[in-house]
Amino acid sequence: MSGDIAVVGLGVMGSNIARNFARNGFKVPIYNIDYSFTEKLLSFEEGKNMIPCRTYNDIKNCLKKPRKILMLVTDTAVDVVYRPFMDILEKGDIIIDGGNSHWKDTERRQKEVESTGIHFVGMGVSGGAAGALNGPSLMFGGDKEAWEACKNILLPIAAKSPEENEPCVAYMGTKGAGHFVKMVHNAIEYSDMQLIAETYDILKKLFKLDAESIGEIFGKWNNTKLKSYLIHITEIVLKQKDDQTKKPLVDMILDRAGQKGTGKWAAQDSFDLGIPTPGFAEAVCARILSSLKNERVEASKILQKKPISVTLNGILTITIDDLEKALYSAKIACYAQGLAMIQAASSDYGYGINCGDCAKVWRGGCIIRASFLNDVSQNYTDCTKNLMLIDKFSKDLEEGIEGWRKVVAVCALEGIPAPLFSTSLSYFDSYSSEFLPANLLQGLRDYFGAHTYERIDKPGSFHTNWD
Amino acid sequence: MSGDIAVVGLGVMGSNIARNFARNGFKVPIYNIDYSFTEKLLSFEEGKNMIPCRTYNDIKNCLKKPRKILMLVTDTAVDVVYRPFMDILEKGDIIIDGGNSHWKDTERRQKEVESTGIHFVGMGVSGGAAGALNGPSLMFGGDKEAWEACKNILLPIAAKSPEENEPCVAYMGTKGAGHFVKMVHNAIEYSDMQLIAETYDILKKLFKLDAESIGEIFGKWNNTKLKSYLIHITEIVLKQKDDQTKKPLVDMILDRAGQKGTGKWAAQDSFDLGIPTPGFAEAVCARILSSLKNERVEASKILQKKPISVTLNGILTITIDDLEKALYSAKIACYAQGLAMIQAASSDYGYGINCGDCAKVWRGGCIIRASFLNDVSQNYTDCTKNLMLIDKFSKDLEEGIEGWRKVVAVCALEGIPAPLFSTSLSYFDSYSSEFLPANLLQGLRDYFGAHTYERIDKPGSFHTNWD
Repeated sequence: MSGDIAVVGLGVMGSNIARNFARNGFKVPIYNIDYSFTEKLLSFEEGKNMIPCRTYNDIKNCLKKPRKILMLVTDTAVDVVYRPFMDILEKGDIIIDGGNSHWKDTERRQKEVESTGIHFVGMGVSGGAAGALNGPSLMFGGDKEAWEACKNILLPIAAKSPEENEPCVAYMGTKGAGHFVKMVHNAIEYSDMQLIAETYDILKKLFKLDAESIGEIFGKWNNTKLKSYLIHITEIVLKQKDDQTKKPLVDMILDRAGQKGTGKWAAQDSFDLGIPTPGFAEAVCARILSSLKNERVEASKILQKKPISVTLNGILTITIDDLEKALYSAKIACYAQGLAMIQAASSDYGYGINCGDCAKVWRGGCIIRASFLNDVSQNYTDCTKNLMLIDKFSKDLEEGIEGWRKVVAVCALEGIPAPLFSTSLSYFDSYSSEFLPANLLQGLRDYFGAHTYERIDKPGSFHTNWD
Repeated sequence: MSGDIAVVGLGVMGSNIARNFARNGFKVPIYNIDYSFTEKLLSFEEGKNMIPCRTYNDIKNCLKKPRKILMLVTDTAVDVVYRPFMDILEKGDIIIDGGNSHWKDTERRQKEVESTGIHFVGMGVSGGAAGALNGPSLMFGGDKEAWEACKNILLPIAAKSPEENEPCVAYMGTKGAGHFVKMVHNAIEYSDMQLIAETYDILKKLFKLDAESIGEIFGKWNNTKLKSYLIHITEIVLKQKDDQTKKPLVDMILDRAGQKGTGKWAAQDSFDLGIPTPGFAEAVCARILSSLKNERVEASKILQKKPISVTLNGILTITIDDLEKALYSAKIACYAQGLAMIQAASSDYGYGINCGDCAKVWRGGCIIRASFLNDVSQNYTDCTKNLMLIDKFSKDLEEGIEGWRKVVAVCALEGIPAPLFSTSLSYFDSYSSEFLPANLLQGLRDYFGAHTYERIDKPGSFHTNWD
């Protein structure tokens, strides 16, 4: 009965997180359906703090109470893996799903186990394989009681924020809050990556720079307020040479992107919350469009882009500085969308999430970690507001907006697709518009569907018998 | 036993469609939970061909076999209304849901009734109150046998296409195909309306025109290839005067748009199909953003737009002709997204839909009816292609693309939100790009998640140990 927390599912993530626990001095029962994974894990140095288990009862019998079991299995396997535990665990024990489950599935499971008194926790884990091993970002969601029981085991293994050295793990809120926040994290990750990709594309197609030179630029930006893990690894990826051709490796990679679904979920779920996240939708669509490589090759022969080369003609020029400003400004707009979505979920679903805590947890360990998130966590104290309206960021936007406008305009004229730069600017411009043309929409809707409209000069709903 | 088709649910849509059947000589049993609606309907001239019913058995007993019952009730009431019929109807009888149900609900209901041999049909009905009375557009989905039994009753009441005078009703495909096509129709309707609204906004904010003058422009456009119901009623709405203030009524309408959900469903469902429909997402987001009126007013005081007034400076000018071209080109891009979505659903869900038939059914009666749809139905014979690649439309786009580029660029610079013009152009530019920057995305994904990538020079999946 010496086990602190069991890890079930010993793929890359599970193995690494088990090693992380063990390295931090915890006793870790480990289990995998194929025992050879268990044996392999024991061979690591951290294996001395692990307890190999062949059955669920083995796991149960070697854990301190309340028992804590962290599952790291693919989302389709969660039901099959967790349900048998319900027959052997006791009231107060804690099952944690650390995979990429949809928050609605997590809440369904929480309902399923409700009567047993066993806690089912949905915990977002970000940072990939390296993060799991050395310090992931952890987003814990479920019963507060379960958090109290687990936090002393989770705090030591989490990443530390680079400036304040605070552990990047926190209680996000009740029910599916952990997986919800992780889902939004992933959508933001999609957005960050898409903005980087568009920037690269502009530097390549408009500035005619090679991969090495573009890598240099990203390297420089990593010393500005853009400083982040993704900007850092962009430099590395762009500078990597292909062993075979000696060309930049990125030039040999096929431009067809994959995705695993969490970004898609966020785009879909934001609509149910009535929160506009056009950036998430656009980032997902950009990946889908990239995957239609054959169609695109065909279309490129048929559709005439007829670019209007303003930059070359000197009518409207953009500089690398403009691009940097556009990248940073669009980033603020995308985070604003994600945080607004979390606010709405917290309120509508009763999670009780403090958006500032999300930013804190994202400062280290996870894919979107960035010095920007220090700024967010320090400045975003009134979480009822849109991020763009916070003093620090509205000032940043004021500084960046002209460069951003020029980048979007030039891309539109030159025929370089910049979907996320564009849609983020539309979001900024719509959100900051006192008047939008929805008065006409309402007039049309009242015309054909008698949907009624409101007036600017008095309350009530009105219908007109249009001539 | 003289009844041809019963109508259940006598709200505006049900009453009008019942009158339409009766006017065309059919005997129509009518039923409403509140009998006063039934009595009121009898008082119309068409009432002489109606048979008032007080119970479901009354309906059953006065219908010819196979019995046909058309329900027009709100989507939340469908289960409650249809299920009792299952106890009294017979094999081969047909229940038609003519409301705005989600296609997944329709398919669930079809499964529920499967063992009874009763047909459950999902039929999209478009055209609003006036369409229901005088000729709606009807999208029939379910068992082909049910269509064969119903078509002679539906053909006479449907709208006729304005040029070929063909009935705007057709068998769309199996299962939920009717409601699926209607859902996409509605998303296209959202897009058409949003593009019109953005055009109005540009004419107002950039060209400084008043509502009456903008109405004139839409009136002229109704004699071009933009000719459509929505352009027509836009002229009427913009020219309408407010009785009280004598100002243009549209100027007195609050710019906060409502929505009923079908556009949202389409945006969400397209992601599950893996079809990019950024225009639908953007049109829905635009409505949501409009609804945040209070936030926008607040934000307009804080966020500095800092417009770059190129048009005024004469650096880059757009004309009304450019706007017309942008409107028409963006419309093609939005229809391309909707038709691609229908193609994918037809293939993935086994509906067997011919997209050309959708265009035919949409030529008359429905909200999106337009001479454009004649062009689509005549030219879109190879429905495996994206609409933009069809000769007629790729030529149209070639003609419109420069105006479109300028409109998007000028809006970006001037700070006028044009989300749908922008995202449609990004769609066009992405789709027609042989190379997109997804190679960098794949490099990054391989770096942090070992997701692997493909190469341009050989098949297979590759992983790099990045320096």
